[in-house]
Amino acid sequence: MSTMRAAIVENFGDELTIGTTAIPEPGPGQALVKVIASGVCHTDLHAAEGDWPVKPNLPLVPGHEGVGNVVKVGPGVTEVKVGDLVGNAWLASACGSCEYCRTGWETLCESQTNGGYSVDGSFGEYMLVDAKFAAHIPEGSDPYEIAPVLCAGVTVYKGLKQTEVRPGQWVVISGIGGLGHIAVQYAVAMGMRVAAVDVAEEKLALARSHGAEVTVNAFAEDPAEAIQAATGGAHGVLVTAVHPAAFGQAISMTRRGGTIVFNGLPPGDFPAPIFDIVLKGLTIRGSIVGTRQDMDEALEFYARGQIKPTFHTRPLEDVNAVFDEMKHAKIDGRVVIDYAK
Amino acid sequence: MSTMRAAIVENFGDELTIGTTAIPEPGPGQALVKVIASGVCHTDLHAAEGDWPVKPNLPLVPGHEGVGNVVKVGPGVTEVKVGDLVGNAWLASACGSCEYCRTGWETLCESQTNGGYSVDGSFGEYMLVDAKFAAHIPEGSDPYEIAPVLCAGVTVYKGLKQTEVRPGQWVVISGIGGLGHIAVQYAVAMGMRVAAVDVAEEKLALARSHGAEVTVNAFAEDPAEAIQAATGGAHGVLVTAVHPAAFGQAISMTRRGGTIVFNGLPPGDFPAPIFDIVLKGLTIRGSIVGTRQDMDEALEFYARGQIKPTFHTRPLEDVNAVFDEMKHAKIDGRVVIDYAK
Amino acid sequence: MSTMRAAIVENFGDELTIGTTAIPEPGPGQALVKVIASGVCHTDLHAAEGDWPVKPNLPLVPGHEGVGNVVKVGPGVTEVKVGDLVGNAWLASACGSCEYCRTGWETLCESQTNGGYSVDGSFGEYMLVDAKFAAHIPEGSDPYEIAPVLCAGVTVYKGLKQTEVRPGQWVVISGIGGLGHIAVQYAVAMGMRVAAVDVAEEKLALARSHGAEVTVNAFAEDPAEAIQAATGGAHGVLVTAVHPAAFGQAISMTRRGGTIVFNGLPPGDFPAPIFDIVLKGLTIRGSIVGTRQDMDEALEFYARGQIKPTFHTRPLEDVNAVFDEMKHAKIDGRVVIDYAK
Amino acid sequence: MSTMRAAIVENFGDELTIGTTAIPEPGPGQALVKVIASGVCHTDLHAAEGDWPVKPNLPLVPGHEGVGNVVKVGPGVTEVKVGDLVGNAWLASACGSCEYCRTGWETLCESQTNGGYSVDGSFGEYMLVDAKFAAHIPEGSDPYEIAPVLCAGVTVYKGLKQTEVRPGQWVVISGIGGLGHIAVQYAVAMGMRVAAVDVAEEKLALARSHGAEVTVNAFAEDPAEAIQAATGGAHGVLVTAVHPAAFGQAISMTRRGGTIVFNGLPPGDFPAPIFDIVLKGLTIRGSIVGTRQDMDEALEFYARGQIKPTFHTRPLEDVNAVFDEMKHAKIDGRVVIDYAK
Repeated sequence: MSTMRAAIVENFGDELTIGTTAIPEPGPGQALVKVIASGVCHTDLHAAEGDWPVKPNLPLVPGHEGVGNVVKVGPGVTEVKVGDLVGNAWLASACGSCEYCRTGWETLCESQTNGGYSVDGSFGEYMLVDAKFAAHIPEGSDPYEIAPVLCAGVTVYKGLKQTEVRPGQWVVISGIGGLGHIAVQYAVAMGMRVAAVDVAEEKLALARSHGAEVTVNAFAEDPAEAIQAATGGAHGVLVTAVHPAAFGQAISMTRRGGTIVFNGLPPGDFPAPIFDIVLKGLTIRGSIVGTRQDMDEALEFYARGQIKPTFHTRPLEDVNAVFDEMKHAKIDGRVVIDYAK
Repeated sequence: MSTMRAAIVENFGDELTIGTTAIPEPGPGQALVKVIASGVCHTDLHAAEGDWPVKPNLPLVPGHEGVGNVVKVGPGVTEVKVGDLVGNAWLASACGSCEYCRTGWETLCESQTNGGYSVDGSFGEYMLVDAKFAAHIPEGSDPYEIAPVLCAGVTVYKGLKQTEVRPGQWVVISGIGGLGHIAVQYAVAMGMRVAAVDVAEEKLALARSHGAEVTVNAFAEDPAEAIQAATGGAHGVLVTAVHPAAFGQAISMTRRGGTIVFNGLPPGDFPAPIFDIVLKGLTIRGSIVGTRQDMDEALEFYARGQIKPTFHTRPLEDVNAVFDEMKHAKIDGRVVIDYAK
Repeated sequence: MSTMRAAIVENFGDELTIGTTAIPEPGPGQALVKVIASGVCHTDLHAAEGDWPVKPNLPLVPGHEGVGNVVKVGPGVTEVKVGDLVGNAWLASACGSCEYCRTGWETLCESQTNGGYSVDGSFGEYMLVDAKFAAHIPEGSDPYEIAPVLCAGVTVYKGLKQTEVRPGQWVVISGIGGLGHIAVQYAVAMGMRVAAVDVAEEKLALARSHGAEVTVNAFAEDPAEAIQAATGGAHGVLVTAVHPAAFGQAISMTRRGGTIVFNGLPPGDFPAPIFDIVLKGLTIRGSIVGTRQDMDEALEFYARGQIKPTFHTRPLEDVNAVFDEMKHAKIDGRVVIDYAK
Repeated sequence: MSTMRAAIVENFGDELTIGTTAIPEPGPGQALVKVIASGVCHTDLHAAEGDWPVKPNLPLVPGHEGVGNVVKVGPGVTEVKVGDLVGNAWLASACGSCEYCRTGWETLCESQTNGGYSVDGSFGEYMLVDAKFAAHIPEGSDPYEIAPVLCAGVTVYKGLKQTEVRPGQWVVISGIGGLGHIAVQYAVAMGMRVAAVDVAEEKLALARSHGAEVTVNAFAEDPAEAIQAATGGAHGVLVTAVHPAAFGQAISMTRRGGTIVFNGLPPGDFPAPIFDIVLKGLTIRGSIVGTRQDMDEALEFYARGQIKPTFHTRPLEDVNAVFDEMKHAKIDGRVVIDYAK
């Protein structure tokens, strides 16, 4: 058999075609993976819409939270072997030689390729991965449950690191959606004290069940005041919410010397109050996905039983329906495509 | 003699009164200083205008770049003695017990007092200082030349530290005025490679004379493009300019992973481009004055001959004229009040 | 009543006198505390023996893990008030002005005083504390259980910070005695993965009960090999053991780039293998007690229920017997003097 | 022509054979370089003697400070092209995938190869380099003068970074030989204040000519006392000396909280005084060569005219004589083989 089922972007803004396409051949340094599960990320929707400044080439198979078994390796591959359970990622490859790759910041490599964006991803029954960049899935993992760790998990884990909040200090997770509900779990596992902010009571209840000590409904009360009262001001804030208001609130939630990390990619500008930033000595920082090292660490927290993403499986054929639900914010936790369905 | 000449704010927005007032008595832990010289800072203008959110109590003697000799000490003072050459500072005192004071961040102490703002400062022939917070002026210093180091100097020195730019990396100094021309000198002394941005050719020439390798006239060319072309993107940017446009430009001047430090206190919001901040992994940070440790270090760079502030001396009676020149951006370098005039 | 019961060192090497002495008067900035409980630390034994290079003045009341209520405050005290539950500490005071105090390193202040060593401590019914340096005991604390946190707790907490081990990384706690069994608990609370090394099975069992994933009996197997096999090499090692062999083993337990922190004060030299240290890029670091900030943080971990020191209460009269048991390594966890007994 | 002149280790402990050997062919990812100059490092002597725990395979061409032009590239090479002036290095290659390579610590990679040790080096007219690891020699460099930067330069530059000494703070360079005289120059360029310690007056004079403010002859006075008196205790010490006494002195030269970095690889143990290390909060750290990023930075300091290694050129035929001079400490600065001689 040389063809596979896949969800393909043929024109930006159109529905994805659920069709067949050729199974790719692994080149030097690559491995072919038979996909078992793939998370669906907001970025996949951007790939399909083509609404980001740099657009992918079409046709494209999106997906960068894919998990599956290596079925074939290309020349020169030593990092994985047939049978290994691996994952793809947004960081599909990086150059290995630039100042960012040399200093542990391959996520900033200007020559990077991106899974399901500049190279085909996991919305097909088979996918290619760069053997050096394939994520190694820990033994005993549930491939469906771990899929969201490959992007949502590593993204919030790295974002939390970038807040520089130490164990015992307060972090606010702003937005308890696909990213945020996993962020609460990582923060707790990292010894941080967690306050969660959202506008939906059931999400705040989920945050509490994962160990958030303080939860604030931003519709019901002023979130900055509530956080200041409960924590004396957070040492760090991780903003996973995409609503612009969340950014301004984040600044008002911190104590002096605190750090606010933006983990999402909403378009537009955010009005940053210079006087407050200077007087309070604040740091505002952007953070995008994570390196292979961050990935390994994020997966290991899962393997030790500390991370339980909320997810629902769907067949590949539902991908357009899932995108529609995503646009209308109807998704709870993360949707994972199940290729066995 | 128990009275002294001083410039006094009696009503916000009015001219300062040049009059006489009682020489204060040093209380426990305080020292009385006979002032020789005092720099004039933009903040003194804000004190006189009363245009910041938290206003000082009136009447007030502004000034926080004062240098003079201790003439009397209060009970319990061990840190200075009569005859010592000392300075006052914006950070007139801090509590010594809060989380900020305990961790080397006394500049963020919520109980701090501020020289020439919440307590009387150096616009009078005598001033009180908290002995624990008095700056120790290195032997052999010119009191007029070193005065601007007490605020402008320590502020940019700390700001440069906060950029986290290492020796051999590029820093942009945006704005080559009272702060910026000193920042160029500190950056060079700290081993950084310096690019200077301003809109006045003579200020860029001054920057070059202090060791800036690259200078960009933001009127003549696009500063972000020019900096990217000359440096490959700066590792850090220190924004001393108060024009809002400078903030957006600063973000476009950095390379991925870079840090932008705001060193001024302009009112209003700055439109921060979230997508760029996240994708490029940028850090934006506010920095205000410096701690006593920063002060000691900043003064020592001066003592070793590495810092030469541009300054002009004026008599105390000229203070209203100086404020007027300040408002119209007619001042070159720093004005220093000379009490011998 | 103006006298109190106390255990007093009158001559180095002699038994302590259990007698009466005058209750001291709080001077400026001091508070008088009626002691409820006081931990007994190995350092108290050194104070009594006078076997450290710098000796205390005699007569001396040892003790720096005292907890009690403020009963009187001296002039100018604002940090505590009558009725507050506070503790004393090894760091009884620091100057507040030196380069160490200014930069968050008051534990290195060369003018510090030390509780129960250079100033009288908690082996008496009443003690004086510097109000700025008194530890604030969190509401709801058990004064007997929290006493060991005041020195043993803060010491290992700071030591763990100094390993720079991040959440999810491996730390080895070498020696599971009075310090080590608390170190296991802090490390777990800080999100670290813990391996414990000792020579007594019951201590390793205690370590496991507190969350150590790996335990190694250094009598039964080669500890370096066992740790390397179980963890791939530790990211950090905290050495609380005083046996010289523990130091060399610690170096062999780390992975490349790892950090070894010495937390004890044994006399003598340790043979450091330079070739290994350089080739493996190791860091070896000394750490002594903690700052007021470390103390607050350490106490807060206790308050949140994450730290349960093993302790036994004894009357003050038993102090010489306790010292004797300490010399013969017969103490399990920590002995706490109970003044109600 | 398919053979070349080279100095070859055939048996450990014997003189090197100056003979001919086949010019190697560049494989995938490799480049062939016609060598112009090669520094001679102490490590080359260890390679020839075979006196380190892990021995190289023989026959071996030593040398890891080679500079020359690329004359041929193997398949898949994009990082260099024919004509480029490049260098080899001790870090000849690293795996690119392990936890060290992923985090900016490729110098700790356990799969690294080493130039002139585990792979042939620059003691021949031609050498192979891994294109990803070849050092890019800045335009306008003198190939003879820059050769010592490739190992001695990057080693001390990285070592200085590892001291964590900031601009304006004191660093001691202990030993002003091949490494130390370059270390003085890097330290000055990095804004540090430099004190130099050696036992030869002409080396101290050289240190002064490069900007050392303080120089101490360890034969003429107690170096620890002299450094404490002149600097108040160094913030950092870089130990390039191989005499064991230098290590103990280094610890006594630091101020509290200071860092001592070992930059050499002498055999044997160093007696580390635990009490002092703990009480003074010292850090002791090993540092070996540098990463590609460190190399680029080290070369750029040279390109900007801040580094002038002392060197003497010799023909390849002299290599055994040079080794002999090295053993008897008769070499001033660095010897560089000149292939044109």
